[in-house]
Amino acid sequence: MTRPGRFITFEGIDGSGKSTQARLLAERLPDAILTREPGGSPGAEEIRALVLTGDPGRWSPETELLLFTAARRDHLEKRIDPALAAGRTVICDRFADSTRIYQGATRGDLREKVDTLHRLMIGREPDLTFIIDMDPAAALSRGLARPDAESRFEDFGLEMQERVRAGFLALARQYSDRCRVIDGNRAVEAIAADIATQMGLAAPG
Amino acid sequence: MTRPGRFITFEGIDGSGKSTQARLLAERLPDAILTREPGGSPGAEEIRALVLTGDPGRWSPETELLLFTAARRDHLEKRIDPALAAGRTVICDRFADSTRIYQGATRGDLREKVDTLHRLMIGREPDLTFIIDMDPAAALSRGLARPDAESRFEDFGLEMQERVRAGFLALARQYSDRCRVIDGNRAVEAIAADIATQMGLAAPG
Repeated sequence: MTRPGRFITFEGIDGSGKSTQARLLAERLPDAILTREPGGSPGAEEIRALVLTGDPGRWSPETELLLFTAARRDHLEKRIDPALAAGRTVICDRFADSTRIYQGATRGDLREKVDTLHRLMIGREPDLTFIIDMDPAAALSRGLARPDAESRFEDFGLEMQERVRAGFLALARQYSDRCRVIDGNRAVEAIAADIATQMGLAAPG
Repeated sequence: MTRPGRFITFEGIDGSGKSTQARLLAERLPDAILTREPGGSPGAEEIRALVLTGDPGRWSPETELLLFTAARRDHLEKRIDPALAAGRTVICDRFADSTRIYQGATRGDLREKVDTLHRLMIGREPDLTFIIDMDPAAALSRGLARPDAESRFEDFGLEMQERVRAGFLALARQYSDRCRVIDGNRAVEAIAADIATQMGLAAPG
């Protein structure tokens, strides 16, 4: 039987550099697949489009939570679980921790519903989660400067970035067995070297 | 304070005549709004389209359950709850009981997940549910003869119709306080008169 692959997620506030670090780690691991949420499978991408386009206020936090959970379930079944079962490393840019923070901690008192829904319909937790921690003001400027600023979350401003950052740090304490907080206030190469070391890889030459 | 309106649902197998009966009852009640699931609000209709178009096998039962629950939550928030709060009668063609039967009883062993998800994210139960009970073979012929045979459920054939019918009858026993089983093997007018009597309305003239 094939040994199951490792499931590694990257989390952090918008503009923290987590997508770049996810990509750099995937490039170091020949067997890895790189994916992202919301989305990551054809069905989940359709659900993502339904949530993220149109009037930002048209879905309530509860409906949005259900739609993101539907997208995650599809992504898990169609892409993540089959790759892990085939022994591949799966690197995912955002996963359930983002829902715990964005829907659970910042938009109404939904955290308990988020956790119950996750246990009921998803179940899977990452083997390892890198939380890229960064100064919220610097991350916000970087996020807003992007040409593809699709994400509605970036519209919420500095106060939101600060609450999200605090949420991720609290989550890192709660799930300390699998979470590693990485200082994102450094050059891209220094952060990548730190992550490589934590993965047991040689520092990039 | 306005007295809340009554929430009345119609359930039954495809082709049982429940949509016709829902419409006839709505015509007798000047304050009523008539709606249906899946769908019933602009957001829920978009989710309905996502679920019901394309390859029928592209969503797993679990993902489909989450999408239908998202649609129901939107429908409830945007249309059903505001109308009930304004004192209006809401008549809905299919509601959570259809999910209990179609997703819960017939597509994998999801019934417990269906019930937990309903309690967590929906909560609302009808005040009164008419279950239109009918011979599955006759209902199937009627359903298949329709020009708008969009519904995938009609593709499942007689065995499916029989399982769904048995599911609704079991549900009527489980929720006997709110469910009334109506014999649908009669002329439309006779069924409508029966329902009107149960509603405390005079039989149609």
